[in-house]
This record gives sequence, structure tokens and C-alpha cells, in this order.
Amino acid sequence: MKAVILAGGSGTRLWPRSRLSRPKQLLDIVAKNTMLQETINRIQPLISQRDIFVVTNSAYADIAAVQLPAVPRGNIIVEPEGHGTAPCIGLAALYIKRIDFDDVVAVLSADHLIAKAAAFRQALVAAEEVARQGYLVVLGMRPSSPQTGYGYIGRGDLLGSYNGHQVFKVAQFSEKPDRETAERYLRSGSYFWNGGIFIWRNDVILEEIAKHLPDLHRQLLGLEPSLGTEKWEPTLKRIWKGVADETIDFGVMERTDRAAVIPVDVGWSDVGDWATLADLLPADRENNVVVGHHVGYDTTGCLVYGPPQRLIATIGLRDTIIVDAGDAILICPRERAQDVKILVNKLKQEKKLRYL
Amino acid sequence: MKAVILAGGSGTRLWPRSRLSRPKQLLDIVAKNTMLQETINRIQPLISQRDIFVVTNSAYADIAAVQLPAVPRGNIIVEPEGHGTAPCIGLAALYIKRIDFDDVVAVLSADHLIAKAAAFRQALVAAEEVARQGYLVVLGMRPSSPQTGYGYIGRGDLLGSYNGHQVFKVAQFSEKPDRETAERYLRSGSYFWNGGIFIWRNDVILEEIAKHLPDLHRQLLGLEPSLGTEKWEPTLKRIWKGVADETIDFGVMERTDRAAVIPVDVGWSDVGDWATLADLLPADRENNVVVGHHVGYDTTGCLVYGPPQRLIATIGLRDTIIVDAGDAILICPRERAQDVKILVNKLKQEKKLRYL
Repeated sequence: MKAVILAGGSGTRLWPRSRLSRPKQLLDIVAKNTMLQETINRIQPLISQRDIFVVTNSAYADIAAVQLPAVPRGNIIVEPEGHGTAPCIGLAALYIKRIDFDDVVAVLSADHLIAKAAAFRQALVAAEEVARQGYLVVLGMRPSSPQTGYGYIGRGDLLGSYNGHQVFKVAQFSEKPDRETAERYLRSGSYFWNGGIFIWRNDVILEEIAKHLPDLHRQLLGLEPSLGTEKWEPTLKRIWKGVADETIDFGVMERTDRAAVIPVDVGWSDVGDWATLADLLPADRENNVVVGHHVGYDTTGCLVYGPPQRLIATIGLRDTIIVDAGDAILICPRERAQDVKILVNKLKQEKKLRYL
Repeated sequence: MKAVILAGGSGTRLWPRSRLSRPKQLLDIVAKNTMLQETINRIQPLISQRDIFVVTNSAYADIAAVQLPAVPRGNIIVEPEGHGTAPCIGLAALYIKRIDFDDVVAVLSADHLIAKAAAFRQALVAAEEVARQGYLVVLGMRPSSPQTGYGYIGRGDLLGSYNGHQVFKVAQFSEKPDRETAERYLRSGSYFWNGGIFIWRNDVILEEIAKHLPDLHRQLLGLEPSLGTEKWEPTLKRIWKGVADETIDFGVMERTDRAAVIPVDVGWSDVGDWATLADLLPADRENNVVVGHHVGYDTTGCLVYGPPQRLIATIGLRDTIIVDAGDAILICPRERAQDVKILVNKLKQEKKLRYL
């Protein structure tokens, strides 16, 4: 089995730790290792590091290579610019086609957390079997709360049981639901979070791209002859300019009739914002999550995240996020964690580039 | 006229800027100069710098001397330890007695703000005249709001008019009132904030200390022979250990029948905590007071106080105080500004000495 790691994200909602020059996936946000390193570590020994492909952009390629010394430098694929997950996955498929045209590929995000690594590998083994038969497999994360920030997958007919996992046809992909719908999904037991983890045969995904995204497929074929030659970079640069933005979910998964879902419980989180991170980390007796040095008086439900040598002192705070990244500090209510994106845009507009 | 500047305070409620090693009065909290320097500047040219005496403790004496190059080093009086304002004022009175036993002395705090310096000097000129006649004069700050954090002075009979100021006998000193009482005081027009600014003849205050604080007076007499000799320091150290804690307000002013009050409107503030400071400084369009570098989204009524090179970003905050002092950051609601003192005590208890 091969792995394709999508590592080109910008992680703006974890500003000010996640920065343009070093985003979330290249940082030790949750564990001692970076999220990219953790992503690779948790699929060991299932997938050899020689079979791991990392798709990122030119700004992050060198840092990724340093963080992953056992991944061959030639497996770090550089996109000239991002156009969503579909072109990204297509590009990696070209690389893999040359080596092992019909091997199974697991597509993973470099900036997600999966707390139960052993259970996750078990699920991948099951998914590999299903994928060998030509299915486009997606892992369905069993929901623990009525999240409105995730896409959902509704299960259809049972396909069978593999490596202890039930596998279903996908009945429906649905975009981020409203609260009421999310609650109905949760109660039904038939809907799962779409964590963006896909397992398929490399030849199958290329066929499906050909069928549902013919323009992209043509562009990939145009690229193919120059792969591995000195013409690669200029050709990629030229063709990539013409590639349309598209996600694999919308472009392929919602259109194909070969989608299968494996419901899993692997402790998945996209660590999408500071509030999500606060939910993941253990809280102290006052229900505060502290990374760094905090002295609080009448303070509860807060995330206090800073370097160990700086004291963050709080009085009378409730459910507040405080993140000290050295040159910049963020303070916002926990329920406003999503708005960090707006703030980062404001910094962009105000040309405060050193803080991006 | 002479001046005695009380400069031994610790200013803990302005933590984390005000620190044990460099408290409020030695910092440029409000203006470009330090509060101590501003205190001296605003009485120029009324009182020559050679006639200014600064009472502080050994930890602050050298910094005070550096900040006040025109004040003779011998006029910086070092208390071995603080025992409240009464002993402090008595000590300065000993120094002045040697030079000019019955000159008028203005007692000022080194860590208060007086926005209207010219009006203040006018009031001092009036107070000097009244003091020459043997009164213990206190300036009464005309209240602009029903503050419950200050002591009040109730005026009695009119004594006369001096340099454009009405002067009254003091009818009553009253401690920090409750809200209802403070509102009644404000409406009456007969009550004034006690800003701790006193003007009296040096011989008169010593007489009053003898009358109302006989123990302290005996201790001061015990000190007198060694003043100016090499025995001064060991004698002071020995005697000062036995001195009881006492304020001049409670120990003398509330007991004497020679107290007079001059109501003034000089823009006085004790800059007692961060909320008070926020009230004093100009706010921007979003009603935030910013000293340093702030980017806010949906943020109003906040004080953002930090060094210029660090960005403080806020989302969805209301009436919050944020103070970044480099090695320590404070975040608290504006209405909890007084509780900074509790937090500093907590730091003391937890032996986090480097942050005190």
C-alpha cells in the first residue's frame, strides 16, 4: 500500500502559532513531533516510508524533507500553487502510476489528529481489501457530537465485513449541516464525519478523474511525458496555471457510484481551530487547558497556550482562548475561535506581513 | 516652600508593569517621564529642586537619584522599612527641621497624576498662605463620579478666600464609602476626594505628631542627635524596627482640630489600577485605549497595553484589560482591575519571585 500525504494547507485558524512560513502541519501543535511527522509515524509499520508521497508547495518542501528524513526526496511533490484536493491527488497518482500503477493508495491529511493509531491501522487494512476490489473507500468517523463544521457521509447498503469492519455503500455525501440536521444525523447512527481519508486503487482514481473531471485528466496526461525529466518543472508550472480549483469530495466522491464507507472510531480530529484543540487536550482542576506557564485567579474553561518562560496571568476569565506565539498574542472567546480566519485576513489587508 | 515626595510605594495593582524592583512611581506609565519625575516637574518653578525631599526605601533610592539629578543626594531619605505615611512624614520633618524649622512643606505622592499642573501650583500658593497661619491643609479633589475607592473629606465652616480659593475647616474625614454614600457625597457638593496632598508648617506637623502620636514623636526625638553623623544608619535601623504602622490621615488629620481643606479641580488621579489608567488615556474609535500594537476584530472598551514590537490581536472582547510586560502578561475584565493585588499575592505565595 502507498500513502499520499496532503501537506500544503495554511492552517490560518491556528494563528498566531500557525504562520505562512510554518503552518500547522509543520508544527508540534499537539504532540512532541510535528503533525506531519505524526501522520507518517502512525501508519508505521503498515506503509514503508519509501512508499509515502507528500504533496506540498515550494515554501514547505524543504522543511517537510528535513522533518521526514526517511522519505525519499523524490517523493516530496511540489505543487506550483494549490487548486484544491482533486488536482493534488491527481498529481500524486501520476507519480505512483510510474512505479506501481494499480497499487492501493491511502490519502491522508498532514494536519489532522488520530488519537487511536492501532485502530486506525486496522481500519486501513480493511480499507485496502475493499479498495482492491475497485471501490473508492472513505473512512467514516463515528460522530461524538452534532458538529456543524464537518461534512457528513450517509451509509447505504452493507457490502460486507472486512478485518472486523462493516463496509457500506455510500448513500450520500452532505455538506456542513445546520444544527438541527447535525443532531438528526447523530441520532440516526447512519451518518459519519467525512475526515477526508480515502483509500483506493491508483488506476481506479485515475479512471474516475477521467470520468468526472475530464479537463483535469487531460492536463495530467499532458504532464505525464515530462515526469522524471528536466522539463518537469516548467511543464508543471505552465499546465498548473490552467487547472481549475476542485475538491476530490465534490469532483469525484459525490459523483461516483463506486464509493464505499467504513465506519470507524479512531479518535479523529481536524484540529481545525483553537477551541477544537482545547477540547482535545487534558484540562486541569479549574477546567483550563494550559500549555506553558499560567497563574489564574477565578479563571475557568480557558485555553492558555504559550512558551514556558512567559507567565500568562488571568483574573475573572471564562471560556477564553489565549495564545502567545512570541511576536504575536491572540485573545478571543472560545466560541469565536473560527473568526481567527477573519482576523488573519484583516492582517493581510493591513499588509502586516511579518505577522502572517 | 519645601516639598516632601512619598516614593516608597509598591504599586502592585499595576502589575505586571509595576514590579518589586521598579514600581509604578519609577516608570513612564502615563507620560514620557516617570511618575516621580512628573511629580517634581509639575511643582517647578514653585519649589526649587534643592528644597525637595524624597522618602523612599533602599531598593529605590539609587534609581530615584538617577531620575532626579537636580535633587541633592542628601535629600533622598531612605526608610529601612515602610510603616505607613505618618512615620515617613515625621522622618522628613526631622530633615527639614535642621534647615528651616518652620518653613511650609507640601507632602506629595510620587505615583499620582495631576493633569492640570498650573491650577495645581495656584492651589499650592493658596495652601502655603493658609498653612503659614498654623493650619494643616489638605487639598480636596472635587469628585467627578461616586468613587468608592477613595477616602472623602467633608467641608465645615468657611475660613476665607486665598489666592482665588475658598478655604474651609474640615468637618469630617471619612473612609472609603459604600456606593450609596458616595452618591450622596457627590450630590451634596460638600465632599471631596482625599488625594493625600497635605500642606503645613514643619513645626506644626511635629507638634501635632507629638500630640496625637506621642510614641512616634519620642522615636523621632531619639533619632535627631544622630542625623548627619555616621551613627545615623544604625540608629535609624534600630529605632525604625519599633515604629508602629500608622497613616497620617488616621494618626493626625482625623484627630487634629487644625485641619483645613481647599477644594480644587486639578485633574487628580491616583492611577491606582489599570481600569483607572484606561479612564485617563484617550480612546480610539472603537473605544479601546491602545498603547503599543493592537489589531482588533469586534473589540470594544478594552485597554491594550504592550511594547510596540509585539502584536496583540483580539476578537470579540468587551471591557477587558490586556497588559503585556514582556516576561508576563495580564488579562482581566476591566471591573476586576482591583483584583490584580490578589493575583500578585498569589504569585508571592507560590514563590514566583522573578515575576513580582
